[in-house]
Amino acid sequence: MKPPSAPAAVPEDIDLLIRPEWIIPIEPAGVTLSGHALAVRGERIVALLPDEEALQRFRPQQTVDLPGQVLLPGLVNLHTHAAMSLLRGYADDLPLMRWLGERIWPAESRHAGPDFVRAGTLLACAEMVRGGITTFNDMYFFPDAAAEAARRIGMRAVLGIVVIEFPTRYAADADDYLAKGLAIRDASKDDPLLSFCLAPHAPYTVADKTFRTIATLAGQLEIPVHVHLHETSHEIEESLKQHGVRPIERLRRLGLLGPQLIAVHAVHLEATEIDLLAREACHVAHCPSSNLKLGSGIAPMSAIQSRGLNFGLGTDGAASNNRLDLFHEMRHAALLAKGASQDAEVLDAHRTLEAATLGGARALGLDRRIGSLLPGKAADLCAVRLDEWLIQPCFDPASHLVYVAGREQVTHTWVEGKLVMSNGVPAQISISELLDVAGLWHTRLTS
Amino acid sequence: MKPPSAPAAVPEDIDLLIRPEWIIPIEPAGVTLSGHALAVRGERIVALLPDEEALQRFRPQQTVDLPGQVLLPGLVNLHTHAAMSLLRGYADDLPLMRWLGERIWPAESRHAGPDFVRAGTLLACAEMVRGGITTFNDMYFFPDAAAEAARRIGMRAVLGIVVIEFPTRYAADADDYLAKGLAIRDASKDDPLLSFCLAPHAPYTVADKTFRTIATLAGQLEIPVHVHLHETSHEIEESLKQHGVRPIERLRRLGLLGPQLIAVHAVHLEATEIDLLAREACHVAHCPSSNLKLGSGIAPMSAIQSRGLNFGLGTDGAASNNRLDLFHEMRHAALLAKGASQDAEVLDAHRTLEAATLGGARALGLDRRIGSLLPGKAADLCAVRLDEWLIQPCFDPASHLVYVAGREQVTHTWVEGKLVMSNGVPAQISISELLDVAGLWHTRLTS
Repeated sequence: MKPPSAPAAVPEDIDLLIRPEWIIPIEPAGVTLSGHALAVRGERIVALLPDEEALQRFRPQQTVDLPGQVLLPGLVNLHTHAAMSLLRGYADDLPLMRWLGERIWPAESRHAGPDFVRAGTLLACAEMVRGGITTFNDMYFFPDAAAEAARRIGMRAVLGIVVIEFPTRYAADADDYLAKGLAIRDASKDDPLLSFCLAPHAPYTVADKTFRTIATLAGQLEIPVHVHLHETSHEIEESLKQHGVRPIERLRRLGLLGPQLIAVHAVHLEATEIDLLAREACHVAHCPSSNLKLGSGIAPMSAIQSRGLNFGLGTDGAASNNRLDLFHEMRHAALLAKGASQDAEVLDAHRTLEAATLGGARALGLDRRIGSLLPGKAADLCAVRLDEWLIQPCFDPASHLVYVAGREQVTHTWVEGKLVMSNGVPAQISISELLDVAGLWHTRLTS
Repeated sequence: MKPPSAPAAVPEDIDLLIRPEWIIPIEPAGVTLSGHALAVRGERIVALLPDEEALQRFRPQQTVDLPGQVLLPGLVNLHTHAAMSLLRGYADDLPLMRWLGERIWPAESRHAGPDFVRAGTLLACAEMVRGGITTFNDMYFFPDAAAEAARRIGMRAVLGIVVIEFPTRYAADADDYLAKGLAIRDASKDDPLLSFCLAPHAPYTVADKTFRTIATLAGQLEIPVHVHLHETSHEIEESLKQHGVRPIERLRRLGLLGPQLIAVHAVHLEATEIDLLAREACHVAHCPSSNLKLGSGIAPMSAIQSRGLNFGLGTDGAASNNRLDLFHEMRHAALLAKGASQDAEVLDAHRTLEAATLGGARALGLDRRIGSLLPGKAADLCAVRLDEWLIQPCFDPASHLVYVAGREQVTHTWVEGKLVMSNGVPAQISISELLDVAGLWHTRLTS
């Protein structure tokens, strides 16, 4: 933010000036501004400044006035399996291992080819931009098909180079998964909205040898490692039986702990493990709905917060959530942390908003590009109306975003300054096409 | 449901025939019907029967076709302080006793007169019918003002004859609270949509003598007793200090346990207490969001369910939730029960829908009139669209209602056969009036 002195004599040309009722920039933390505007040139934020100053300093090509609305960074979905939106509600009320073994894996082995991934990711991206999500961190087969879908909708995607020991329609063995994922990464190098992470599925599906290879690759390529970790107590018991140690200790020995590691779920953690992950500057992808729905448990977010372990929020896939909605996850995260610790002051509204934006960006190594409204960052944004009758009155926009509003109140989503959703509708695809895609796969999956 | 034989030669006149894609009648349990219709005459359900048979048997004045939608009983909000919608988000991220003592009680003592209650309950009722809620069980001052608001919106209300030992703008002492509440009840006897319960606030705000009077009155008047109970561990510790026993045991000794008792929150329960409440045929009003938000804890719903203790769902007031939305509560209840017990099979979708309808009706002693779609019951109904693009695909309507849909998908709400909400808008009041009411009180509360 510039000091309010010495306006330039000649106004600067910008592409977009957004003038909402409130702005929550995330950096600095805990701040809600009113009477401010955000200036965007090309794909970047140029300035966040008092409204009157903005009108003097800039000559915008387009001005968007948003009375009654709050502008904040686009939300970062730190863990999903986007293509699984086609399996939304396909199996419910089952524990993780039965849910996977009896319902999800059989359906995937029959159906999960590139067409499935393209279609499912398309639905997922449309749903996500509807709810103000601008970036998602994905783990699924055929990431090239997922990339096509993300590009179509205009979202920023971090695609997992997924690795699992057993064969699927996508790849034959761990080496094959890695080779395919790396080739897709090479082919996508020039797309500014795409990046990649290594995505070994879980401790119980990936061998030591493969984890070692991944640790080496992560160092060479300087990309994150995204892995399901300490999701269930069953996973930990199995690791103790097979490896003699808990999964985090196993990954430590294999060289995987460090600032590149995103531990997804992290439900069952001992205090020493939280300290270890914090010391190693790892990150947690907290997925409260999914952890509850599969009966996995409740992550110790109060301790994770107090030990300074960075965390973001994830929806997980729509087969275990069943909606890709970070407004639900923010509310769940804030409420659950308080209830589980019996401390109503844990994870307050601003801290929760930070987790859903900058926390996720940090985990992905993207915090210099996204996650807050600092000048120079990408104009990944969402606007939420807080003036709708059924959520009145509003005393504090941050509280309202976390505890009251829903994704139905999101009015605009921008990625790199480009409007990808407005009026409840994705900009790049028609509703009828989305319904056709969902209908086609519903028929295939039930016939 | 009638057998599909011998259609009447002359069609019967009815007022309304609803033909949705699916019907979830709640009774019988666990059933989702398709190709069925619901017939309504006056304020009552006449029949639920196969669509073709309905077209032969009835001559409806009005037919409502609902393709892609599911029809179910109107939701029952088993615990709220409706007027507190004016304090939505007025104080957050504080524990119960500080939240009450530092923020809520001071604001109430300045503002909570009849105008406040009328205005706040009006907003609350409008919000509730928007989300498919047809009945609410209220606990607040000036229930006559709340009654006016409920009548205006057309909702069914169970109004608490609130009792608390300390003086407020409403009443001077326990006897005065009781006298005022009973007089309001007498004056409202002829309103078919209004009924009453005794509402001693909580063990920590009501004396033994008053609880004894309430036990006697409950027996004489045959109405429920609605009390905050075992909400926080602090409440239990204080009871042990002051009374030598935990609150449930204290209430047992005072003669309050029985089928008329609605224990609100019931977060901190020992196994013997769950058994005792079940044996005495008491009821629990489970308020998952509020219990989490105030840091009270997580109610043992897995044990409550398995011991056969009846329960319904409540939003609590909008000051501690912060939305009067039973779709959120259903989702929270189902997910939280699984997560806390690490058992994904607890509280499945159908069981959760039952809690939000028939469970609440049973607790209120209204299960012969509402809570399911049996012929003879009141036509308190809601319809929810499951064909919207961002919640596709849909494999199971019950699962979709609990795990995917939100109140934004509710399209119609009927109370006693009268449409009280459609197209997202309450039938009996304009949006501009609601916004004016909220705006006026926002100004008063912040000035």
